[in-house]
Amino acid sequence: MEVNANCPNGDRSRFDSARIPDGPTNPMVTPLLTDLYQFTMAYAYWKAGKHQERAVFDLYFRKNPFGGEYTIFAGLDECIRFVANFKFSEDEIAFVRQSLPGSCEDGFCNYLRGLDCSEVELYAIAEGSVVFPKVPLLRIEGPIAVVQLLETPLLNLVNYASLVATNAARHRFVAGKSKILLEFGLRRAQGPDGGVGASKYSYLGGFDATSNVAAGRLFGIPLRGTHSHAFVSSYMSLDEIVDKSLPSSDGSSSCEDFVSLVQTWLNKIQWSSAFRGIFGETNQSELAAFTSYALAFPNNFLALVDTYDVMRSGIPNFCAVALALNDLGYKAMGIRLDSGDLAYLSGEARKFFRAIEKEFGVPGFGKMSITASNDLNEETLDALNKQGHEVDAFGVGTNLVTCFAQAALGCVFKLVEINNQPRIKLSEDVSKVSIPCKKRSYRLYGKEGYPLVDIMTGENEPSPKVGERILCRHPFNESKRAYVVPQKVEELLKCYWPGSLGKAREELPPLKDIRDRCIKQLEQMRPDHMRRLNPTPYKVSVSAKLYDFIHFLWLNEAPVGELQ
Amino acid sequence: MEVNANCPNGDRSRFDSARIPDGPTNPMVTPLLTDLYQFTMAYAYWKAGKHQERAVFDLYFRKNPFGGEYTIFAGLDECIRFVANFKFSEDEIAFVRQSLPGSCEDGFCNYLRGLDCSEVELYAIAEGSVVFPKVPLLRIEGPIAVVQLLETPLLNLVNYASLVATNAARHRFVAGKSKILLEFGLRRAQGPDGGVGASKYSYLGGFDATSNVAAGRLFGIPLRGTHSHAFVSSYMSLDEIVDKSLPSSDGSSSCEDFVSLVQTWLNKIQWSSAFRGIFGETNQSELAAFTSYALAFPNNFLALVDTYDVMRSGIPNFCAVALALNDLGYKAMGIRLDSGDLAYLSGEARKFFRAIEKEFGVPGFGKMSITASNDLNEETLDALNKQGHEVDAFGVGTNLVTCFAQAALGCVFKLVEINNQPRIKLSEDVSKVSIPCKKRSYRLYGKEGYPLVDIMTGENEPSPKVGERILCRHPFNESKRAYVVPQKVEELLKCYWPGSLGKAREELPPLKDIRDRCIKQLEQMRPDHMRRLNPTPYKVSVSAKLYDFIHFLWLNEAPVGELQ
Repeated sequence: MEVNANCPNGDRSRFDSARIPDGPTNPMVTPLLTDLYQFTMAYAYWKAGKHQERAVFDLYFRKNPFGGEYTIFAGLDECIRFVANFKFSEDEIAFVRQSLPGSCEDGFCNYLRGLDCSEVELYAIAEGSVVFPKVPLLRIEGPIAVVQLLETPLLNLVNYASLVATNAARHRFVAGKSKILLEFGLRRAQGPDGGVGASKYSYLGGFDATSNVAAGRLFGIPLRGTHSHAFVSSYMSLDEIVDKSLPSSDGSSSCEDFVSLVQTWLNKIQWSSAFRGIFGETNQSELAAFTSYALAFPNNFLALVDTYDVMRSGIPNFCAVALALNDLGYKAMGIRLDSGDLAYLSGEARKFFRAIEKEFGVPGFGKMSITASNDLNEETLDALNKQGHEVDAFGVGTNLVTCFAQAALGCVFKLVEINNQPRIKLSEDVSKVSIPCKKRSYRLYGKEGYPLVDIMTGENEPSPKVGERILCRHPFNESKRAYVVPQKVEELLKCYWPGSLGKAREELPPLKDIRDRCIKQLEQMRPDHMRRLNPTPYKVSVSAKLYDFIHFLWLNEAPVGELQ
Repeated sequence: MEVNANCPNGDRSRFDSARIPDGPTNPMVTPLLTDLYQFTMAYAYWKAGKHQERAVFDLYFRKNPFGGEYTIFAGLDECIRFVANFKFSEDEIAFVRQSLPGSCEDGFCNYLRGLDCSEVELYAIAEGSVVFPKVPLLRIEGPIAVVQLLETPLLNLVNYASLVATNAARHRFVAGKSKILLEFGLRRAQGPDGGVGASKYSYLGGFDATSNVAAGRLFGIPLRGTHSHAFVSSYMSLDEIVDKSLPSSDGSSSCEDFVSLVQTWLNKIQWSSAFRGIFGETNQSELAAFTSYALAFPNNFLALVDTYDVMRSGIPNFCAVALALNDLGYKAMGIRLDSGDLAYLSGEARKFFRAIEKEFGVPGFGKMSITASNDLNEETLDALNKQGHEVDAFGVGTNLVTCFAQAALGCVFKLVEINNQPRIKLSEDVSKVSIPCKKRSYRLYGKEGYPLVDIMTGENEPSPKVGERILCRHPFNESKRAYVVPQKVEELLKCYWPGSLGKAREELPPLKDIRDRCIKQLEQMRPDHMRRLNPTPYKVSVSAKLYDFIHFLWLNEAPVGELQ
């Protein structure tokens, strides 16, 4: 049997199907999820016989979002799922045909019919990495027509994923390691998979759980949630509770009238010397709702306490139910605040809980968990920290998932080489000039273990070596350069899709591992790059050789002006 | 045969399946696309035997987006598709079971198994309508547990859809009726169906076309697109063009060397007295790319002219190709500018085209279409108008689709009645107090045909009548009230989903019709509500009877404070 040297499984068609990941999470991500001009260009390339010319494109961004100096790279897993399953259906081909302006030759449809990504190679930085402007996140090489068709979907899959992961990481940075962060944004997200994506990439960026059940199921993200204001106001009085019995936690006994037990506790609190005068009659529909919820979830009683009045109704009602549960051996989980002055209310609630612990001798009651939500963002978390607060967990919605502070990341996709000829995209704005050539990138680490600089080199330059003195140059600013002697050198671009080349391919790790990488990488960064106010830019450079080549090419391509 | 009085087709199960629309566009929109707390609440309701209690919820927003005084309602079609097909699979039920905290009784799973929206009634304002704060966009009535489960997906489907439709309408307002508006945002959208949704709802809000092929296919939106900078820089020289022949437009003859024809024209332009000294040697890779593109699309030649230098290379190269096409009977479409000073460059390009028309006697050449893109938004469109420009079509991407100026609309979903008992949600912030009761809403029109005020009444109040003097009260501000004598009265909420009640159901019109409604309604508004600077708020009111009831309920529910 003849075995194809490039493909260890010569008897399979072009791919080793065992290694092909599933398709994209969202079934709407098909080869048609692209801009029309990718098809008009593909047709023009095909007409010119140019479609098979080998091109290299870089996908990168030009500026970190949210006024920060770092970005989290996310979306790679979905990109590879898309690339691996890239294939047109007959219906799709028919639609492309009718969408192209003018008449489309049959040969082009045949070409599309046979198209897949077996001739495409995709290199990428590991998902969950801390990344910086200008350094390619993806390097895609292949026949120019097919790589162009990938442009829009790859940008779509990376842009928002990286933006929201970065946003999540920034929220985590402000909240601190010890707080629980919950993503609650599905209802305000930009469309259904704006919501699902937000949940996935917020978790990747350091959140602990989501309210989004679909995302929990798709990605194994921990789920959290209890009840809303509507639940509270759906009750009118305690009379509505029909089945009032609750077995004790260990099953040894049963309380026949849990409602009375709750009322007894509410009375005890109200008339104890510690609380006298703090509150009068609490809202009875709220008390009924809490009691009913506790009967359904005696082990997971967490109550939203701000439907009527936090201190005069919500907290006393919660404590009465929690103490009644405590009598039966259950431990209440805590409260959620969704309005008002969260710093003040969380402090008052904490005092109340501590007073209950002391007054009624219930160990641990003072440590009752306090969750806060209500339009939180980086700024409000920061303000809460400055004021002092007693919140244990934050639910963040709108501002996190829609990236309200900056709703888009500007990743671009630029041709850097065709037929082994380097290409440059010029612009009057220097920050928009592309860095030509098929490149490698490295992260160089210093003595203290921090990353010092990222450096891009030509594909065939020798890689930087530990202990060697390396000149790192700003790609466009002649005077900015520095020597670095790295203590560790990490090559950034790894092969995630070798096409049919039979090269080794990086594994796509599970989401939890990507999240761990992200958290670890963030911890490894020098603190001044990470701070919210005036962070220090991380340095991104090119080798001396690449620098010279960029500027040679630039001069070559730019028209010479004539002053008139 | 016994016929169910409520259901004209008693032999069918619960629905008339012929009337059930297809499922949501995005197959990820399933009953699990909701917050976990909807399930914990459903479980608690079910445990308390309360799940079948009939509840009414309103879905509305509190504030118009983008600093404006109007909003476009969108997303209804997807909401109805979702509601009509609401059903749990066994896998989904198993996942819910394992996701609920504590142990979940089998009975609840059986309950979920039988659940659909046959007992739900959904009333809505017509999609594409101009709408205002506080007035319900949707009124959903049904068993409380199932209506709660609908909350998150309905909010998700309405929030972004309405936001982006409003954003599109605002862009159209600034651009003016005569300009062509193209949505180019897929690559920067918040996830794949952030992109698809943006295309759909931008079209609804008044855009003319999209670059998004998938959206074109799904919704029949016109598609537009030509080529990118990469296409231009993928060419090195004219030598790359192998097949140089082009038949004439009418097929009567053929040009064997179109490349030479282009070069001849470039020479003619360069040396004609009208253009002498304006440009020197143009970029040859650009010329090759334009020529090649024209060979592929001779009837649809539109070139991106800013890869190297608009006036010294792009425009002359474009004109040479366009004039060569003209020789063969083809009419070039125009250019696209994607960087630089669009006002200035479009003006210069127009002058160049007019000079060509005059110099070479090509009628219509001066009217060549100019498309502009590059980070456009309301402000830049407005600034271009003020400066004066020659742009015919605008491509808007990032700012449109991510709603960069305000990335979220804050629709909420509030319980207004349960078991025929009106409910109110209080808040220290008056703007967050909900308007209780199952309500009807009307739009009252004045003599000049403009809408004057929206008014909400209790469900059983007589409807306002034409010519009758009606007292319209601000729901929360005692002193704000006005008498109105309407010339036309329009009931806003129509039944879009009667459940199994057999009531007549409003048709879901095709997207094109929804778009027409939107454009027509926008034209009908009094101009001062629509202007960008300091628009006049449109009035939203309640009937005198509803006003009195709101304030009675408010006093009843609010705890009385004690000053200490």
